[in-house]
Amino acid sequence: MDNKINPSGMPNGFSLDRMGELDAGEQQLITRRMELLGPAYRLMYDHPLEFVRGDGMYLYDVKGTPYLDCYNNVVSVGHCNKRVAEAVARQVSLLNTHTRYLHPAILDYAERLLATFPDPLSRIMFACTGSEAVDLALRIAFSNTQAEGVIISEFAYHGTTMAVSSVSPSLGDAVPLGQHVRTVRAPIAYRSDSEDVGRRLAQDAEAAITDLERHGIRFAAFLADTIFSSDGLAADPVGLLQPVVDVVHRHGGLYIADEVQSGFCRTGDAFWGFLRHHIVPDIVVMGKPMGNGIPISACVTAPGLLDTFGTCRYFNTFGGNPVSIAAASAVLSELQECNLLENCRVTGNYLKQQLKKLQCKYACIGDVRGVGLYLSIEFVKSRKTKEPDSIKTLAVVNSLREAHVLVSTYGIFENCLKLRPLLIMKKEHVDYFIDQLDKILDKLNKS
Amino acid sequence: MDNKINPSGMPNGFSLDRMGELDAGEQQLITRRMELLGPAYRLMYDHPLEFVRGDGMYLYDVKGTPYLDCYNNVVSVGHCNKRVAEAVARQVSLLNTHTRYLHPAILDYAERLLATFPDPLSRIMFACTGSEAVDLALRIAFSNTQAEGVIISEFAYHGTTMAVSSVSPSLGDAVPLGQHVRTVRAPIAYRSDSEDVGRRLAQDAEAAITDLERHGIRFAAFLADTIFSSDGLAADPVGLLQPVVDVVHRHGGLYIADEVQSGFCRTGDAFWGFLRHHIVPDIVVMGKPMGNGIPISACVTAPGLLDTFGTCRYFNTFGGNPVSIAAASAVLSELQECNLLENCRVTGNYLKQQLKKLQCKYACIGDVRGVGLYLSIEFVKSRKTKEPDSIKTLAVVNSLREAHVLVSTYGIFENCLKLRPLLIMKKEHVDYFIDQLDKILDKLNKS
Repeated sequence: MDNKINPSGMPNGFSLDRMGELDAGEQQLITRRMELLGPAYRLMYDHPLEFVRGDGMYLYDVKGTPYLDCYNNVVSVGHCNKRVAEAVARQVSLLNTHTRYLHPAILDYAERLLATFPDPLSRIMFACTGSEAVDLALRIAFSNTQAEGVIISEFAYHGTTMAVSSVSPSLGDAVPLGQHVRTVRAPIAYRSDSEDVGRRLAQDAEAAITDLERHGIRFAAFLADTIFSSDGLAADPVGLLQPVVDVVHRHGGLYIADEVQSGFCRTGDAFWGFLRHHIVPDIVVMGKPMGNGIPISACVTAPGLLDTFGTCRYFNTFGGNPVSIAAASAVLSELQECNLLENCRVTGNYLKQQLKKLQCKYACIGDVRGVGLYLSIEFVKSRKTKEPDSIKTLAVVNSLREAHVLVSTYGIFENCLKLRPLLIMKKEHVDYFIDQLDKILDKLNKS
Repeated sequence: MDNKINPSGMPNGFSLDRMGELDAGEQQLITRRMELLGPAYRLMYDHPLEFVRGDGMYLYDVKGTPYLDCYNNVVSVGHCNKRVAEAVARQVSLLNTHTRYLHPAILDYAERLLATFPDPLSRIMFACTGSEAVDLALRIAFSNTQAEGVIISEFAYHGTTMAVSSVSPSLGDAVPLGQHVRTVRAPIAYRSDSEDVGRRLAQDAEAAITDLERHGIRFAAFLADTIFSSDGLAADPVGLLQPVVDVVHRHGGLYIADEVQSGFCRTGDAFWGFLRHHIVPDIVVMGKPMGNGIPISACVTAPGLLDTFGTCRYFNTFGGNPVSIAAASAVLSELQECNLLENCRVTGNYLKQQLKKLQCKYACIGDVRGVGLYLSIEFVKSRKTKEPDSIKTLAVVNSLREAHVLVSTYGIFENCLKLRPLLIMKKEHVDYFIDQLDKILDKLNKS
């Protein structure tokens, strides 16, 4: 397996080694960032981008050049979506308080959103970020199980708080995992030695629980991004999560579904990623696209779990405030009234088909996988050995940037193309993207 | 000392025992809240409030009745402040992305805000909530000291993440403090057996460090709300924090100033609460009023501390996004161009004077303290014994609500009136408030 190649410590991160290649204005902005924001901040691409406006599927740079956005899942109903922008503008001029006063809008929204969940998932708590919601889910899980052992996937990312970064191995070695944390292999069929990735996941989880208990740590929860995005994407086969859910419940633990990536219609087949696998999590966490960029996130769970936790009062100053609820309500209306679930399914299927065609043409594409508008291409040096080709992946990402298409890389070996376009993507956008990708792969193959 | 009286588990919380006193519409909203949001959510007041719009110093209920807001410090430049609302409306229609693309606005704002800090505090990292910023400060502190012992005040509140709730004793017994946490008495002169509260605080901290080390826990940080708001308010004497800062540094720890309450001109004498005491913290945390209700928070520190932490990449999806930066920039302009620091000082002094006059009139007022527009009245059963009177305090708060003035209670004994009006408060608002409070105290004295 090749080493990871980016000196920035982040896949597709800008490295200061390239400073000399940039123009004076860009250099100045980057220098100011370093002086003001410090070294923990990262930029994307060999040649970072500066955008000045957004509209639908596109971001526009300082020269007015449009970039087709096949990456930013936060703004899933479109950059500067009119319904969302108007709702925010109206509410910020009308009222913005907090949940310790009565306000019907938060309840109306909660009812509409909870209607997308199966029984018994019928309670919602609001926060501002996915990290806060995962952190809250862990607090609820620990308080209910009176345990603290957590199992996650090998290269999971769940967020940035102290508790959540300790269950986010993809942050790298500089951020230690908690002593109460164990990892299991992501159920990615292409990289698995098992015919049945769901069963292997369940077996790994069973072994991890045994190991936790051997160390005197009681098992509390299995926490997984339902589509294992950070690991490089695992959506198939349908039903793959049932065996691990059974193991988790047999051992008295809770199954926490992190739907920050897979929720809000992203998978095209259902409103939530877990519905694809016909399971019911104990706690569901959501964030990013919930407010199309206005900070709002939430935990949804069954009443019983909150009864225990409810003895702790929880107040999130901005969580569920009228402005964020206005944004989230507009997003939900947009998803529902514009049939974005159906659009995601149709456009996603078409995109996947076209990617499969490229796979027939280019041997460097080892695998095409995913569902809806979350798709992955895995680049390899050889289809036989499956040796990851992170250098080619990064070259493709940077070439696409030069062709004005936004994507990124991810996965344990940084050799997966991360395709996560806005849910409003149409066939014409797919065609442009595929055409550019085809040309780039053709050129890279000849070089 | 009397017991705390509120069955909601929160000072000035609504108790379901009073459901029968409410009208059908209110009962229905509260029932829906319980069914949808669950039991961890709390409402304020014996008779909860529902607001439909905000404007300047006032919130308006469903009947159009204005309530003078002497409580909500988030909207410190005024409810639905026009400059902030316009900035948000403009930006949400123009562009809303994240910090992995270049964007000058975040740098322009960072420069303007950092100009309010003394050397060497010159780096800023953005998050969405105060909880996230305190959590990040702890991560930075632990990573720099390679230690994890934390000292906080006896009744501190710092936020809601797992790490931060474990250093927030005011959340109550249902939320355990961390094993690595020790508490010290807040430096409130009125409740102190010492002539020199600053020295006592330093001695307590020294003892806490010794105790941590005796238990094999290395000392990392002293974390304190600069005005000790949750403990019941401690602003005087000026300089009271110097001895504890000296102790902290002598033991190799960091001083983290939680300025969520005292920052952004709240104390009237300086932009930041710590400046009042002529100290320079190692890390400063800010939140609530930063975006006047749009979620944004930050950590400010010296470059050296971030060099170590910078090996961890940190990405907060919504943190420092263009919309929250637009809100925060507008707040900063409003504070500076409308001279709200000066207004806070002048109006705060006048309010404190008027409260002192009431103290001469009513024996139940044991103490009046605070600075700028963060003031506290402590109600006692007897000035001699200083026995706290939480029942009277709550009666005053609920009576003020009936008189259409918003305040709340706090403090270890829940016997302090929490006065934290918007920074745009004028003499006429003070006069109305004082007049109402005078009438209420007069009536309560006679009953």
